[in-house]
Amino acid sequence: MNAISSGGHVLALSGGVGGAKLAAGLAAVIPPERLTIAVNTGDDFEHLGLTVCPDIDSVVYAMAGLNDRQRGWGVVDESWRMMEQLRSLGEADWFNLGDRDLAMHIARSWRLRAGESLSAVTARLTNQLGIAHRVVPMSDAPVRTQVETDAGWLDFQHYFVREQCRPVVKAICFSGTPGAGPSAGLAEALARPDLAAVVLCPSNPFLSVDPILAVDGVRQALLSLKVPRIAVSPLIGGKALKGPLSKMLDELGFEGSNTAIAAHYGALISHLVIDRTDEDGALALRASGLQVTLAETLMKSSEDQARLARDVLTAAGVE
Amino acid sequence: MNAISSGGHVLALSGGVGGAKLAAGLAAVIPPERLTIAVNTGDDFEHLGLTVCPDIDSVVYAMAGLNDRQRGWGVVDESWRMMEQLRSLGEADWFNLGDRDLAMHIARSWRLRAGESLSAVTARLTNQLGIAHRVVPMSDAPVRTQVETDAGWLDFQHYFVREQCRPVVKAICFSGTPGAGPSAGLAEALARPDLAAVVLCPSNPFLSVDPILAVDGVRQALLSLKVPRIAVSPLIGGKALKGPLSKMLDELGFEGSNTAIAAHYGALISHLVIDRTDEDGALALRASGLQVTLAETLMKSSEDQARLARDVLTAAGVE
Repeated sequence: MNAISSGGHVLALSGGVGGAKLAAGLAAVIPPERLTIAVNTGDDFEHLGLTVCPDIDSVVYAMAGLNDRQRGWGVVDESWRMMEQLRSLGEADWFNLGDRDLAMHIARSWRLRAGESLSAVTARLTNQLGIAHRVVPMSDAPVRTQVETDAGWLDFQHYFVREQCRPVVKAICFSGTPGAGPSAGLAEALARPDLAAVVLCPSNPFLSVDPILAVDGVRQALLSLKVPRIAVSPLIGGKALKGPLSKMLDELGFEGSNTAIAAHYGALISHLVIDRTDEDGALALRASGLQVTLAETLMKSSEDQARLARDVLTAAGVE
Repeated sequence: MNAISSGGHVLALSGGVGGAKLAAGLAAVIPPERLTIAVNTGDDFEHLGLTVCPDIDSVVYAMAGLNDRQRGWGVVDESWRMMEQLRSLGEADWFNLGDRDLAMHIARSWRLRAGESLSAVTARLTNQLGIAHRVVPMSDAPVRTQVETDAGWLDFQHYFVREQCRPVVKAICFSGTPGAGPSAGLAEALARPDLAAVVLCPSNPFLSVDPILAVDGVRQALLSLKVPRIAVSPLIGGKALKGPLSKMLDELGFEGSNTAIAAHYGALISHLVIDRTDEDGALALRASGLQVTLAETLMKSSEDQARLARDVLTAAGVE
């Protein structure tokens, strides 16, 4: 695979599964010193004494080639022996903790408890897994996404996993913001004089990208940037591949279309990459002043990931 | 299996593997309301953010029929997927944490951290595993065995597992004592008017029973009891079946014999059960005023455990 070898630094903002795939694609085509991947931590939660960071782990597993493509989340070649035994001990079993995945939660949790920052822990874990690119949490301060539903306010994982996204969403907030500053890695990337582009990965805008934008100063920093800020739409044919985005758009009163995605990001983005099959929507989007690029946004393989990464970088004018 | 149905309450003091087998044997022949098993917690330690209680777990696994007899410790049908992955994350791998065993550590650790006592956590876990008999920690306060060796002072598990008992032992102390009171379950058993016998299980006297004796008031309470206090020797033919006892007896200047075990316990015990093959040592022991019973102390099966339990109870005069 030919690495794109010059043209400044790229900052990617990523959530979980979909974002993780593009993040891995970007890492496949940009050398380590030219890429920072800042990951949503709003989905993080404390469970059975462990700090679980689902989006960081999705990104790390995708970049290390450890992600389970079939299941769509977690580690490949997983087993569930601990979980079976935990069930027999009468403990909560609604959040599945795989045996291999557990190593990440255990390593992270004890180091956080020992006083290491999430940035330091993440740098250590990625380094151990042979990931040369910078993967940084959006913030070292805990931010926790809360979802207001017809069943009341729910912690994100309670809504997402325990309740399987069944409750109707009315509003979303990010507890801990304002007050949570960007991690050193994110702040540094935003301030780089050689920053060439910001990529908003194809993650759920409400649940995966908005928490990053809610970190102190991040939205303003992005708005003040003169470089391309390019979002990849998570919709294909008006539908999200995975997760509750389609249902949520509907519940929050938006149509399921790239227009809704563009409207949600507004002035934050200068470019939108949409799926080739959604060509008919491009005209209206372009009329609103947005630069629109058609690409194959479905990523089934690491080749797909790298191809989409190249298309995104080309659209952003990054060589 | 016929349960022994009358004759007062039995208090068993147990360490890990050997003690756990006799504890399970006692539970097989004494009904739940007539048995309290108080377990050494001096081996407990904090590792990777988890509170590991090896002796409680050995007793619980043996009583639940989950112990691995072949390996001699831990859970039967174990796997090590978490551990392999943890190794790839660069974390300490000297203490093996099996996938099934992990459930116990996770369930215990988060509940302790949430403020439950070790007694409450242990009661919950045994109850969940269908154990009707009372298994109680010797204390709810942390007691941590420290071993002075030719390589300096070592935490017990560092000596025992990490250093594989290689350093020469000079002394042993139980950090946290004095100051650690007996758990409610142990205190209650010691104070019962219907207490009929105390059984010191065939565990390492220095490492498994001495910590229990070091808990505030326990040694004095035992000395003041008028009931049979019967120890089962952990030696057969002068050798311990497992663990560092033989090496330690030597390093601490004792001969490897039941005489050394009897001398160590002194006035704490009124009876000693020794292996049938050690009959020639019985005479000298009896001459010292001790009641000595010969029995088959090797426990390879649950039938062996129950048989030895019956022999011990008969020797103690408990019907």
